[in-house]
Amino acid sequence: MNDQKPSLTDVRERIDHIDQQIQSLISERANWAREVAKVKGEGLSAIDYYRPEREAHVLRMVVDRNQGPLTDAEMVRLFREIMSSCLAQEDPLKIGFLGPEGTFSEQAVRKHFGHAAYGLPLGSIEEVFQEVVAGNADFGVVPVENSGQGMIQITLDMFLSSEARICGEVELRVHQCLLSRTGRLEDIKRVYSHPQSLQQCKTWLRINLPWAERIPVTSNAEAARLARHADDAAAIAGQSAGHVYGLKTVGEAIEDRADNTTRFLVIGRKLFPPSGNDRTSLLVTVNDKPGALYDVLSPLARHGISLNRIESRPSHDGKWQYAFFIDVSGHSADTPIKEALVEMEASLADLRVLGSYPVALP
Amino acid sequence: MNDQKPSLTDVRERIDHIDQQIQSLISERANWAREVAKVKGEGLSAIDYYRPEREAHVLRMVVDRNQGPLTDAEMVRLFREIMSSCLAQEDPLKIGFLGPEGTFSEQAVRKHFGHAAYGLPLGSIEEVFQEVVAGNADFGVVPVENSGQGMIQITLDMFLSSEARICGEVELRVHQCLLSRTGRLEDIKRVYSHPQSLQQCKTWLRINLPWAERIPVTSNAEAARLARHADDAAAIAGQSAGHVYGLKTVGEAIEDRADNTTRFLVIGRKLFPPSGNDRTSLLVTVNDKPGALYDVLSPLARHGISLNRIESRPSHDGKWQYAFFIDVSGHSADTPIKEALVEMEASLADLRVLGSYPVALP
Repeated sequence: MNDQKPSLTDVRERIDHIDQQIQSLISERANWAREVAKVKGEGLSAIDYYRPEREAHVLRMVVDRNQGPLTDAEMVRLFREIMSSCLAQEDPLKIGFLGPEGTFSEQAVRKHFGHAAYGLPLGSIEEVFQEVVAGNADFGVVPVENSGQGMIQITLDMFLSSEARICGEVELRVHQCLLSRTGRLEDIKRVYSHPQSLQQCKTWLRINLPWAERIPVTSNAEAARLARHADDAAAIAGQSAGHVYGLKTVGEAIEDRADNTTRFLVIGRKLFPPSGNDRTSLLVTVNDKPGALYDVLSPLARHGISLNRIESRPSHDGKWQYAFFIDVSGHSADTPIKEALVEMEASLADLRVLGSYPVALP
Repeated sequence: MNDQKPSLTDVRERIDHIDQQIQSLISERANWAREVAKVKGEGLSAIDYYRPEREAHVLRMVVDRNQGPLTDAEMVRLFREIMSSCLAQEDPLKIGFLGPEGTFSEQAVRKHFGHAAYGLPLGSIEEVFQEVVAGNADFGVVPVENSGQGMIQITLDMFLSSEARICGEVELRVHQCLLSRTGRLEDIKRVYSHPQSLQQCKTWLRINLPWAERIPVTSNAEAARLARHADDAAAIAGQSAGHVYGLKTVGEAIEDRADNTTRFLVIGRKLFPPSGNDRTSLLVTVNDKPGALYDVLSPLARHGISLNRIESRPSHDGKWQYAFFIDVSGHSADTPIKEALVEMEASLADLRVLGSYPVALP
């Protein structure tokens, strides 16, 4: 190519040539994926050779290699879809989630498993656990934490009675914006949004819009639709909704906690090997006596294991027992954690490894 | 590679090597896509250089080249997503559709524009037309025909008053199945399904299950969920729902018209050049006099143009006027159609080319 600007026809010919190569490589990849299936045995479903640790590793390499112009997130998305198609050559994975379709939970399913997996919308978080344990779904995706509002108790409590294991995590990030037609704060008399979003932006609203009525509606998209029909209305919704509905941004990242992420867990029936960058979730049940929590944590500290999260819940089993949900960095097959677990087991009422799984990609 | 079965490690190394090449080609493609944007001018949005005829051409080449193992539909899906990501490097396309999210219409949006476009869920088909014409949405996707139930009148009628043009078509194919836990017809006392699906399978139900109660529910997924809790219930839903919910197939392709396709139109504000395999939609308004329809059709016949569809509607303008919606094969820039249109215009009250657009991929 010389300095001359290429013509549209030239560019298109180059793109056609690139597409041809991409396609033949995708076909080759799909053939090798079948080879993997053959290595593992004939007549199997996708669930029999789906390896979350391998997928996480592949996607991390994609991020490491990426030099643009596509963003890491877009490039990861494309490889997720390529892997999803390759895997779905056999019986596709069935993924249970809290329905209906079109919810945030389904977005998490698609972000993690791509669009070639079957989505199985279910009526409740309990049902997601039940269907996974019963084998009607291969995996489930359940919300576990909203950075604005903490842990989702119903999900944690399910682990007290369910045999489900954690096989992965997915994070969806959403910044809330205040959007209106005029873009002027002083015009706003009503704010529409989903109740959860109103809750997430409580402090900002109290300080900046104490006079405005808060009106809960079924979704943030609905809020944005309503807001564009009046000069005295505003919506709390994502930036993209403002773009889509032609509204001006009055306030950006107005959620009380600026890093507004919903975290989902991928649940399944078994544990998987290390991917190289993992997290381990433990469920520890102790008697309510002084020093119990200290006893739980000290082996972890001794082995230099970093604690990511801890959440205590009254146990279902005994009146004076407490359950601790503990997330630590690393995989339970790694030496430091393995050793710490042995020490913890010696002193504790009950210790269960809920799962060791790849840390969510950004 | 010799005859020996390759190890899992070998296969994974090969896949890693393939992924590396795919990624560098996708990045190169994304760079060339930006080059196209530059050729067309700086500071433009995706809408300024989105070319449906070019995309259709690219996807047809993908189908022509495809030798498996992925199906044509899966390979097309992957290229659709790659193009969607490349295009969305600038301001992504905004696509209006009949909401909420998760509906059949959104599936059509994603099938046609991929997941990097912004979806804009709207409250009605009218609103989709309005937002496209007003420029708040770049394109809209509206259902126009269900092979079981004919043309969707509200969509056709919108063209009588709207300036919107047709820029594409999308087809979604769904076979209805009767699914139940036992798989035995004689056990079934109740049939759950969406009202539209019950309607589509009326004849089959009357002949095969005259005794069963028909119970309309909000979606076919909901129907399948209900059916798996009782031995005397069944659901009408797609085959995949049966798979997902672990139900047995009692009857396959039970819809009254076996080819159960919903056809959507992509609407926009302007006409696009030929893609090589196009369809043209005409709106013709005539006075209600003997021979009017014959006059409309004879130039088309004379120039050997095949008629795909014809649908008459009372015109909104005059009491005794009729509007004909006519779909023909070919593009209005092609000589035979161009000549036929000139002849038709000479004799008719009103003739509008609603659009010439690529025929839907299977």
